[in-house]
Amino acid sequence: MSLPPSFAGLWLENATLQLRRHLPLPDLAPGEALIRTRLAGICGTDLELTRGYYPYAGVPGHEFVGQVVSCPDRPQLKGARVVGEINAACHACPTCAAGRTTHCPTRTVLGIVNRQGVFGRYFTLPARNLHVVPDGLTDEVAVFTEPLAAALRILEQVQISADSRVCLVGAGRLGQLVARVLHGTGCQLQVLDPSARARASMQAAGIGAVDHVPPGEADFVVEASGSPAGFEAARAAVRPGGTIVAKSTYHGQLTFDYSALVVDEITVVGSRCGPFAPALEMLASGALDPTPLIQARYGLDRGVAAMDEAAKPGATKVLLEID
Amino acid sequence: MSLPPSFAGLWLENATLQLRRHLPLPDLAPGEALIRTRLAGICGTDLELTRGYYPYAGVPGHEFVGQVVSCPDRPQLKGARVVGEINAACHACPTCAAGRTTHCPTRTVLGIVNRQGVFGRYFTLPARNLHVVPDGLTDEVAVFTEPLAAALRILEQVQISADSRVCLVGAGRLGQLVARVLHGTGCQLQVLDPSARARASMQAAGIGAVDHVPPGEADFVVEASGSPAGFEAARAAVRPGGTIVAKSTYHGQLTFDYSALVVDEITVVGSRCGPFAPALEMLASGALDPTPLIQARYGLDRGVAAMDEAAKPGATKVLLEID
Repeated sequence: MSLPPSFAGLWLENATLQLRRHLPLPDLAPGEALIRTRLAGICGTDLELTRGYYPYAGVPGHEFVGQVVSCPDRPQLKGARVVGEINAACHACPTCAAGRTTHCPTRTVLGIVNRQGVFGRYFTLPARNLHVVPDGLTDEVAVFTEPLAAALRILEQVQISADSRVCLVGAGRLGQLVARVLHGTGCQLQVLDPSARARASMQAAGIGAVDHVPPGEADFVVEASGSPAGFEAARAAVRPGGTIVAKSTYHGQLTFDYSALVVDEITVVGSRCGPFAPALEMLASGALDPTPLIQARYGLDRGVAAMDEAAKPGATKVLLEID
Repeated sequence: MSLPPSFAGLWLENATLQLRRHLPLPDLAPGEALIRTRLAGICGTDLELTRGYYPYAGVPGHEFVGQVVSCPDRPQLKGARVVGEINAACHACPTCAAGRTTHCPTRTVLGIVNRQGVFGRYFTLPARNLHVVPDGLTDEVAVFTEPLAAALRILEQVQISADSRVCLVGAGRLGQLVARVLHGTGCQLQVLDPSARARASMQAAGIGAVDHVPPGEADFVVEASGSPAGFEAARAAVRPGGTIVAKSTYHGQLTFDYSALVVDEITVVGSRCGPFAPALEMLASGALDPTPLIQARYGLDRGVAAMDEAAKPGATKVLLEID
């Protein structure tokens, strides 16, 4: 199959998103694979980029299932259906040597920092970032690997057990996955979300959701609301000596009572990208079914409308069918 | 010895401090001891109270060495020279039952919350809060037990080892003790303080002090600056995936970039009161000599002037000789 000279994709610049029909095909750096996007998911970070969260110009998007078009360094990957870790690290600096590749100071991040993303027909990623999708796993399930990995990151950072009282603030796109992951630990979970629709969706998954929680009782609070108000709610819910896991990224600053955090000896743990292998395994085994979270599917031609739909309050996962 | 009908002490009300000569003797609740203050230390929290940090009205002060005047429940304590833990807990609620007595929701706190403090001739504390000062330990050393315990709290919360790169932000009253405690772990310590005098005092103790640190390199940063700018400096110094231990309490809010904390996966750990027994032991063994931190001593009559001196930038420990 010969490659076209250019391709169509969404383009973000100066916080404005538009469809461009003739983007140039990317060059392959050593170790990289050229990937054709099959299916992509819209994440809160993509929306925040359009609000100026980070001064990114280019094709946004980082949640994908794709097919490897070429990979000179690992030719056996050609044709494989893959998902991929979004941080492309140098693997040479002290941070990488210490195993913290997701924090490599010169990393690029797919569709977020200095690397064209997946809301277009073609993109590149280092071959070492790719995970082959098992045959039985559909695109519409596998596309949740990246956000599910981000949810699983929480369990790498804090020790949640069956007797932990846990509160999740925000049952949105990411929150719904976090809720399922937390529920899987057997902990005493309460999901706090002002939206009746979000709560109903949680109840349908067998997870208790509420519009208020008793103050100061939770051992752990996961804050995945995507807004500064979420931290306030998390702060109210957590018990003295408890832990807030911070999952939200948004444009803007947070103001809060630092001294009260000291006096109450609260721990706040920033939490970002997580492990792909267990996420893929959870999806492949059927332990977690993310398909109820799919709100809509759009073709790439209607990508701008898809982003608009994803930006609506309470929206869950909007998918872009690209191939 | 018969008790006087009233006693002299500093009195704080509406953020105004004055000497009152005729405060009524406190009543003893069950389990409490009446204590005569011998020597007291002025802490940053005392100063923040005068700035409206917390709406406390009464005798301030919580760092003390005292002598037990009476203790009906533990008569053997009568006459003993003591220091004391400042949180008076109920020992009956679920928080206390879980061992988190310093977070008891109905606790009183000596000179801070609903309990008259030590900047007067008499006060009360539960007998179970008291620790007898070993004979060889002078008042001027033992009076550092409470702030040293607060410094030692850090080592209960985070695992600092010889290969940890640690930065301390702020070498003030508390910071100087924290520096000595951190130094004792054998970690790679840099103390960041803008004051040449604070840095010189650190150097005299054999501890490296600087006026800037390389950004993003510290595994742990202890923020003990007592000001919002300290958090900014801590945030700049900590590496991605690193930990900030928050020790400052001050009047006012903190504004910061929450999303960056999430992206960099920073952990922030609020840290307050610590263990008295190891603090007393460190002081008794001579492992830590706090006396270079004593800046001045005042009699109670000049207590308001003592607070003024303690409030000067860069001030270390100002003591009140009360008995």
